[in-house]
Amino acid sequence: MRGQRTRAEDQRSRRTKGRIKDALLVLLASRGFNELSVSELCREAGVTRSTFYRHFANLSDVVDELIDACFEVSSRNTRSGGPGGTLDNARRVAAMTEPNELRAHETLLPACQRLANDEKYLPLLMDESLAEHVIHRIYQAEIENSVPLYMGRGGLTRREAELMYLRDLYGTFFLNRALRWHKDDYWYRMHILATRATLCALDSVRGTPIVPRSAPVVTER
Amino acid sequence: MRGQRTRAEDQRSRRTKGRIKDALLVLLASRGFNELSVSELCREAGVTRSTFYRHFANLSDVVDELIDACFEVSSRNTRSGGPGGTLDNARRVAAMTEPNELRAHETLLPACQRLANDEKYLPLLMDESLAEHVIHRIYQAEIENSVPLYMGRGGLTRREAELMYLRDLYGTFFLNRALRWHKDDYWYRMHILATRATLCALDSVRGTPIVPRSAPVVTER
Repeated sequence: MRGQRTRAEDQRSRRTKGRIKDALLVLLASRGFNELSVSELCREAGVTRSTFYRHFANLSDVVDELIDACFEVSSRNTRSGGPGGTLDNARRVAAMTEPNELRAHETLLPACQRLANDEKYLPLLMDESLAEHVIHRIYQAEIENSVPLYMGRGGLTRREAELMYLRDLYGTFFLNRALRWHKDDYWYRMHILATRATLCALDSVRGTPIVPRSAPVVTER
Repeated sequence: MRGQRTRAEDQRSRRTKGRIKDALLVLLASRGFNELSVSELCREAGVTRSTFYRHFANLSDVVDELIDACFEVSSRNTRSGGPGGTLDNARRVAAMTEPNELRAHETLLPACQRLANDEKYLPLLMDESLAEHVIHRIYQAEIENSVPLYMGRGGLTRREAELMYLRDLYGTFFLNRALRWHKDDYWYRMHILATRATLCALDSVRGTPIVPRSAPVVTER
């Protein structure tokens, strides 16, 4: 009996949280995150403030859960699994020559570049004041996969690799933003180009055929 | 006589604007741009609201003038002058092997990467809600220099070049942010790496030796 009641409570709790999260997406569609208050969100969701605070610490907390849902952190098994796989995937994307190839195999892209697979998350991804928050969350979720790849492939120190990864992450996030995360041919083509750019940069950041003289390892401080 | 009075007026006007701009930097050092109002700025600057509105349309207008000052749009003559020069400069930076080389020749970097040469602008460059505003302003100022470079070097269409430039601009801006624009050895080393990354990406975005098969031109929509 006790177990059933708990399951019922869990279900109700999940529904309430879902309503609050959906309400935030509705509000973000017309206004900036900075302008919103907990009271407004409660009004939109049809819950009391005390209900809100039973489920979330504050507005940022709701955003974090939305990002995680959008990012499908729980469905990592659909992803490549490890840096080796990721690098192979990136190589396959870089070798593509037309948008439809990538469209047919878009799971080859890192999850962070497929965030807008469900359009309902678009207001979250387009909000100006949330950009750094979202990127920071992706960074935390991806860093252990990505940084070894940068270190191994690019021959960078840990800190250099983190910063180069951050640079690519910001760049690609805002590329997505400029395209409004809209997956037309153009989006796929730009992601092929961006993947090539990232791979080539990684490959040659320690010494590249296009610089006029050999460029050995930069000395670590 | 008339000319003299006008010059005196101009001087007074410049001083008033300077006071308002400095006051904004003072406020930004402790609070986010989003939280500021014209009234507060007037109080900090010691001017009336009507004085403020004689010189600026709104707070964003003050930000724009600060960015321009910081960016030294007027001192373009200190810069490379044209995409050819910029590319040669980038090649020279990419070929460097230690921080001091770049420190001794830092004008080889694009102006947008040297924004924080005067520390007083740091609050402007670190404000979270102003990042996109600042980047957009840089984009507008640099686009005619940078996009032909991307088109020529990378073989991209105009729109592709704009987007790849935007990607690099965001990436490097936030790399600077992560380093708090602080020019220690580390900053110079990261800029050597980032310049190599950008050049190599440009060079190979259309077909690269590291992809397993030849990667011809992506078809334009």
